[in-house]
Amino acid sequence: MKIAILGTGTVGDTIGSKLIELGHEVRMGSRTANNEKALTFASKHKTGAGAGTYEDAANFGEIIFNCTKGDASIEALKAAGSALDGKIVIDVSNPLDFSNGMPPSLIPSLSNTNSLGEEIQKIFPKTRVVKTLNTMWCGLMVNPAMIGGGDHVNYICGNDAAAKSKVMALLKEFGWKENNILDLGDITNARATEAVLPIWLRVWNVTKTGAFNFRIIS
Amino acid sequence: MKIAILGTGTVGDTIGSKLIELGHEVRMGSRTANNEKALTFASKHKTGAGAGTYEDAANFGEIIFNCTKGDASIEALKAAGSALDGKIVIDVSNPLDFSNGMPPSLIPSLSNTNSLGEEIQKIFPKTRVVKTLNTMWCGLMVNPAMIGGGDHVNYICGNDAAAKSKVMALLKEFGWKENNILDLGDITNARATEAVLPIWLRVWNVTKTGAFNFRIIS
Repeated sequence: MKIAILGTGTVGDTIGSKLIELGHEVRMGSRTANNEKALTFASKHKTGAGAGTYEDAANFGEIIFNCTKGDASIEALKAAGSALDGKIVIDVSNPLDFSNGMPPSLIPSLSNTNSLGEEIQKIFPKTRVVKTLNTMWCGLMVNPAMIGGGDHVNYICGNDAAAKSKVMALLKEFGWKENNILDLGDITNARATEAVLPIWLRVWNVTKTGAFNFRIIS
Repeated sequence: MKIAILGTGTVGDTIGSKLIELGHEVRMGSRTANNEKALTFASKHKTGAGAGTYEDAANFGEIIFNCTKGDASIEALKAAGSALDGKIVIDVSNPLDFSNGMPPSLIPSLSNTNSLGEEIQKIFPKTRVVKTLNTMWCGLMVNPAMIGGGDHVNYICGNDAAAKSKVMALLKEFGWKENNILDLGDITNARATEAVLPIWLRVWNVTKTGAFNFRIIS
């Protein structure tokens, strides 16, 4: 499949590299066509990887991963413009607000009664936004079996059932077992998965490892 | 030990009844001295249970559980007044805001960069507030062994180490194993544990059981 990665940070590189490993073609997008990290991503993989602007990448991809920082996501997606139309946007970002120091809080206008995921869906109504994977360290996103036999929770939400099915299939390629993927319903549920970050950050601070996740026990 | 329960709802009744079972003396406090639910609580237990106003209960207890609804907690504690001075307040409440429909969001002024737990500590500086147990259904608070061999997480936070130690001892009486109680640090970490509610409510909505909790897998 042809997939766009928007964002050149660790999350984008980790997901993009996994997709290449799985045999997909990936184009990494950034603000400029010659972003050093995107070019490094493209050149370190022998085949299947490319780099370009946000718009280039979005034009290329059938599915688009938003791996930009939460406070820059809307701007990045706006730069991709109409190239997003009709496409699935997998939003793995979180609206972290570092302006009050560490640990970050959430951007007030994108939390509690709103969320980054639903804001993206509102601003880009021709896309089908699916929120998933945003409640964990990126190493686990693409390799859940790293801990606990892969038995820990990944939430998914979005308004379009067919889009969620396609994303589910991709998650299974990453190693996610279907019974560990919890479909919460429509995109407004991103309010809850993004609100996992405050506790995630503090558990991380205490345990000093990002390689953890939550399992639902009942 | 002499313990006050502020609040006459299911949470207060569940914790109060467990404390009686463990041999503690409990006084349940409410706005009025003759609250029907508090009187029922007092009369259904053969010994050790009483009822009174918030102030009566706070005067009686060495430790005070805040089991009032989050949007009424500050008012309830103000009614207890100076009877709170020098005491440990175990805050198990959450600042849920039902004004936007279901599922509830969090009260804006008590979320993200603030929390109910730290607001109580600010308003009542002579108390030692310990936030714990607020991330689960009350049945599990006092009987963690009900699911998963009791191996799931309970967070604790507060500014006073000695107060947290005392609360830890009480949690162990409830059946909590020490290695499942995660000390996050000072009371500002209540921002994170109260922010567990949005995801808790949605998992509950999907799974249709409150008898679940999260285990940290690493």
